[in-house]
Amino acid sequence: MADWNELGRVARDWTYEAADEIKRALANPFKVEAKSGPDDLVTEVDKNTEAFFYKKIKEAYPDHLFLGEEGTVEKINHTDGIVWIIDPIDGTMNFVHQKIKFAISIGIYEDGIGKVGIVYDVMADELFYAVQGQGAFVNEVELVAGKERPLDESIIGLNARWLTETHHSHANPLTALVRDSRSIRSYGSAAIEMAYVAADRLDAYVSVNLSPWDYAGASVLLEEVGCRTSSFTGKKLSLLEGGTVIAAKPALQREIVSAYVGEEN
Amino acid sequence: MADWNELGRVARDWTYEAADEIKRALANPFKVEAKSGPDDLVTEVDKNTEAFFYKKIKEAYPDHLFLGEEGTVEKINHTDGIVWIIDPIDGTMNFVHQKIKFAISIGIYEDGIGKVGIVYDVMADELFYAVQGQGAFVNEVELVAGKERPLDESIIGLNARWLTETHHSHANPLTALVRDSRSIRSYGSAAIEMAYVAADRLDAYVSVNLSPWDYAGASVLLEEVGCRTSSFTGKKLSLLEGGTVIAAKPALQREIVSAYVGEEN
Repeated sequence: MADWNELGRVARDWTYEAADEIKRALANPFKVEAKSGPDDLVTEVDKNTEAFFYKKIKEAYPDHLFLGEEGTVEKINHTDGIVWIIDPIDGTMNFVHQKIKFAISIGIYEDGIGKVGIVYDVMADELFYAVQGQGAFVNEVELVAGKERPLDESIIGLNARWLTETHHSHANPLTALVRDSRSIRSYGSAAIEMAYVAADRLDAYVSVNLSPWDYAGASVLLEEVGCRTSSFTGKKLSLLEGGTVIAAKPALQREIVSAYVGEEN
Repeated sequence: MADWNELGRVARDWTYEAADEIKRALANPFKVEAKSGPDDLVTEVDKNTEAFFYKKIKEAYPDHLFLGEEGTVEKINHTDGIVWIIDPIDGTMNFVHQKIKFAISIGIYEDGIGKVGIVYDVMADELFYAVQGQGAFVNEVELVAGKERPLDESIIGLNARWLTETHHSHANPLTALVRDSRSIRSYGSAAIEMAYVAADRLDAYVSVNLSPWDYAGASVLLEEVGCRTSSFTGKKLSLLEGGTVIAAKPALQREIVSAYVGEEN
């Protein structure tokens, strides 16, 4: 049986090592490419960071599987055994434009169950960390379950762009959600925003489209503090394909599904 | 003639001293009140911090005037002479809910001209600082003018709530602005978001309603790096009454006024 504390410790060490390399890379010009469109960026730093983790994992744990955002290394179509799900730089647009507020995100899963979660906000030096059943931490401080607040006292992480894209079915429900909540924040890194829900800095985070590597790390943190993740229709998030995402305190997650975005379209 | 470097040094020292007190206060429960409405919060920490600055200033510089958010101390109706314009805690909702991403904001003006600007993101320990004519800095690093980008490559700081408030005249132009820009961020502290424009982390920041203490400090930073501030109709910001605000790189400021929000209503 895997020693999850040991695996978590190793994953943290590699995270800090990768972060040092990313900070060095930030000091010099680097190549940026557009992937699916002009807002979907990738840099050589994303690719090098992913390759770093892949090499480390395959050397130390040759039987573990690997699922990474840049997809340069391995394709998997099941979640049996131990799978590392990694976003080498979550928030690449922030990385390119702002040089702050991007994260390394790691989730280690066994047979589809989250065992270790890491979200590291590199420039803020905030490491969110959890091992299943042992609580969640930011740096050395344990996170405690945040109290539930009514929606009109809740702060929601949400991208304003989605209110303006009237061609999809989510614009109206999300507009109503924004209107009924206390306030909206948007930081440009889904992993950090979900970690902020776990840390009670946001009451919920909502996205119309994420991939497993965006939420695999933070999902473990959220689970540890009693928060819930689901799709807009309340379904369990998949580790093999992405879609809509809600991460929230339990009652708020139910309210967002039932009163706002839960209708199948 | 005032020695602005000396005044700036003193203001920075007081800022760090006030921040230490704020951090101590955060460790204990504090009283929160609603001001104009449930989303307009004030705490005893805001009030105590404002009183701290007022006392320091009046002791050291009895002829200087003082304009503060909490308004507990002095009312002024002109900007002659030397005026300190202070928001003791910009982003009080963040302070209360998140315990991060709030700032002490200080602008020191002489006859309406910005001489010293400070925005201190207390928990991130980022001090944005400028003395007129001497450049702007974050901690010890000098900020350089960011390159202009076309709107569709620009990141704009903007509160999603304003897209949903269809009773005012700004919802449609702001919706168009969101749709045409690359991406939107919202951090919940106008002072920090304007400092981010000065630091080239955002290309623009736009607000339908700010007060002088929200922008007095950051305006000095922005000026130093060649960015512009104005109302939605392109007018100079007033130090005595608030309103709409754009803070942006110069070409982008002109574009946001002329193509989006500049129509008088």
